[in-house]
Amino acid sequence: MEKPGLELASTLHEIVSRTVDGREAAMNEALARIGERDAQVQAWIYIENAETLREAASTMPADLPLAGVPFAVKDVIDVAGMPTRCGSTAEPDVPRAFDASCVALLRRAGAVPVGKVVTAEYAFRRPGPTQNPRAPGHSPGGSSSGSAAAVAAGMIPFALGTQTGGSIIRPAAYCGVVGFKPSFGAVFRDGLRQTCESLDVIGWHTRSVADTRLLADVLLPYPRPDAGVATPPRTVAIVRGDPDNLLEKASERALAAAREAFERHGIRCVDVPFDRASEIAEIHATIMHYEFARSLSPVVQRCPDQVSASLLETVRKGFNIAAQDYLAQRHAQLYWRDRWAELIGDADLLVTPSTPGVAPQGLASTGTSAFNRIWSALGWPCLHLPMDTEDAGLPIGVQLVGRYESDHQLLSWATALHGMLLTGE
Amino acid sequence: MEKPGLELASTLHEIVSRTVDGREAAMNEALARIGERDAQVQAWIYIENAETLREAASTMPADLPLAGVPFAVKDVIDVAGMPTRCGSTAEPDVPRAFDASCVALLRRAGAVPVGKVVTAEYAFRRPGPTQNPRAPGHSPGGSSSGSAAAVAAGMIPFALGTQTGGSIIRPAAYCGVVGFKPSFGAVFRDGLRQTCESLDVIGWHTRSVADTRLLADVLLPYPRPDAGVATPPRTVAIVRGDPDNLLEKASERALAAAREAFERHGIRCVDVPFDRASEIAEIHATIMHYEFARSLSPVVQRCPDQVSASLLETVRKGFNIAAQDYLAQRHAQLYWRDRWAELIGDADLLVTPSTPGVAPQGLASTGTSAFNRIWSALGWPCLHLPMDTEDAGLPIGVQLVGRYESDHQLLSWATALHGMLLTGE
Repeated sequence: MEKPGLELASTLHEIVSRTVDGREAAMNEALARIGERDAQVQAWIYIENAETLREAASTMPADLPLAGVPFAVKDVIDVAGMPTRCGSTAEPDVPRAFDASCVALLRRAGAVPVGKVVTAEYAFRRPGPTQNPRAPGHSPGGSSSGSAAAVAAGMIPFALGTQTGGSIIRPAAYCGVVGFKPSFGAVFRDGLRQTCESLDVIGWHTRSVADTRLLADVLLPYPRPDAGVATPPRTVAIVRGDPDNLLEKASERALAAAREAFERHGIRCVDVPFDRASEIAEIHATIMHYEFARSLSPVVQRCPDQVSASLLETVRKGFNIAAQDYLAQRHAQLYWRDRWAELIGDADLLVTPSTPGVAPQGLASTGTSAFNRIWSALGWPCLHLPMDTEDAGLPIGVQLVGRYESDHQLLSWATALHGMLLTGE
Repeated sequence: MEKPGLELASTLHEIVSRTVDGREAAMNEALARIGERDAQVQAWIYIENAETLREAASTMPADLPLAGVPFAVKDVIDVAGMPTRCGSTAEPDVPRAFDASCVALLRRAGAVPVGKVVTAEYAFRRPGPTQNPRAPGHSPGGSSSGSAAAVAAGMIPFALGTQTGGSIIRPAAYCGVVGFKPSFGAVFRDGLRQTCESLDVIGWHTRSVADTRLLADVLLPYPRPDAGVATPPRTVAIVRGDPDNLLEKASERALAAAREAFERHGIRCVDVPFDRASEIAEIHATIMHYEFARSLSPVVQRCPDQVSASLLETVRKGFNIAAQDYLAQRHAQLYWRDRWAELIGDADLLVTPSTPGVAPQGLASTGTSAFNRIWSALGWPCLHLPMDTEDAGLPIGVQLVGRYESDHQLLSWATALHGMLLTGE
């Protein structure tokens, strides 16, 4: 997947395979790549002092699983000593006293937060300045724009992001990295600037499925069902998913190529029309608007001139939703969450486009969550699997979606499936 | 319920019944009562500048439902311009930029936050300095100690609190005020310093059930089923609830008196043994420890010398819980949440002790949540109903518990039942 001639910082797996001395190089490598590339990519909004970072990395006890591994944090998640700006001038530029719970868990495993990366305004729509490192002049996707871009540019082995609609999967797809949104409720959200209590999920971007699995071992509360052996699934549901006829040729071709590769490896692929797509998209829209309005109300009350027109309009819409409609959709959300068989049938997982097509030209919009919000509403785990082919020079791939709370199983299957896509056997 | 000779600030209902001019007096009245009594009670940790408060109260648009009503906020919930200290020196003494979502909703309805009230350390065990205003030298209960005490001392018509185990109901019982813990998930938690994502609930203390209903109309996302007419329930389940034989004579007597009053009014009272009490208490213990450890880990990592031994020990225990045990108990929690009939039978609501007995002597402990954590685990709405009798000079009452998300129905029944207890007819 890597552009020839572009030297990348080591992957998570490369770093943790090294001796302690070797690990200390990872921080310098990350700082060097950031220094070389961020003037162009603009993924970072805050970077900790280099000496402090080298000291932190070199003093991490060597027996910790992620000792010395540098990482980036989306700027809606607190890191001690760094500000949390949420992509908005409304937020004060003052350091936070404590890490978010997820950052503290990573630190406990030995990892070192290097700094904060760009988010769209309050993890919603208004884009930041970040460029797509794989396609300058194109959107990196959002709202976890800086997370995907920093990983894609080879600046850092992993980055934390968040998803309410499609904010992890979409930038992963546009930038050509692995993006993982765990099941709803898997990663605790203390220290996250929440916007939708029933939808927001913390996840991450990496350069490989193997790296994503290492983080899943640290951050997920689910017992791991296997010893790390990746087995292929038996049956895969193909969900074309074309809400409002948005699906473009690039995503159609990627889906067809993935299906062909899987079938060549003996995996049964069945078409599932997913008739309930618009019904579940409606669940997402109602819950999102109702909760977003109440979460952003404090900012709108105090700093109305510092928020975008799109945010103001969304808050206004949210306060117009009737309580009974909101409550009915919350119940529908929970009802469908555990009804995989009724929605999908007997398939092990589903394969569906991550985005309508490749990264759009220009930075005015980060794209649509039309291919993501259904799974966000259901709370099912989602993974973007980048392919090693491109479409007109832009990254492309497919989205895998698994059963609620079967995150480790999804990642095990993803490991096997990714091998089939990358080798092109 | 009021001590003779003790002049109390107006209730919420009294304030909102006044003309606009009359409403402006409420803020002065609250500030006067705080000035007179807080040196003894020590409920407040931060009070906004009086001129700022008078200005805010007098400029609230008169057509807002709570225009000019002063209120107190437990010091784990953010208020713009005030610090959030969480009962700990570990938290920085710097003003927060924004209100919590629940505070912003109240402000949107016209209410004015006067300041922050004492919490036990991170809404857990280590008590603050607050005295029980109804019984000096006795605990006010916790962790929402300042909330209940400020309302009981007549300083303020209502106060926001939080409950993870028994932190709203217990101080309500010890201080002799109405305490309401809504259904889990009812009040959005943005801007709350969470400790247990699957248990923490925001609620409030008032001097009457009617006042609690006014707040429910502003803060709950549930459609209100009636036009405010209070109807009595048909059947009440009496749950004696004596885990570990903790029940003391005072609470036994209060429960018997309540039953007698209800039966005199033609309400059918049935004894329900609640065999699953210890099973559900175990659900609470496992979820609480697992989540608390991860939420407090950032503080323990950074400020180990500024946290209590009890907090450190709870975090240590929480990291020793296996993921599969935690997950199994989370599933059990959701399983039982909607199974009222299987647990309680056909009763409309249940009546059970709020606490083992009256407020304990001394301030070393805020008491046990043994009579509350079962309902906190289930996420069912709970209300403490103070009686107008006392036991050895200390407040006493009973706890009402309703079906999940039937908060308005519970409050309607509570209005009718409270009348039966207070008039003693």
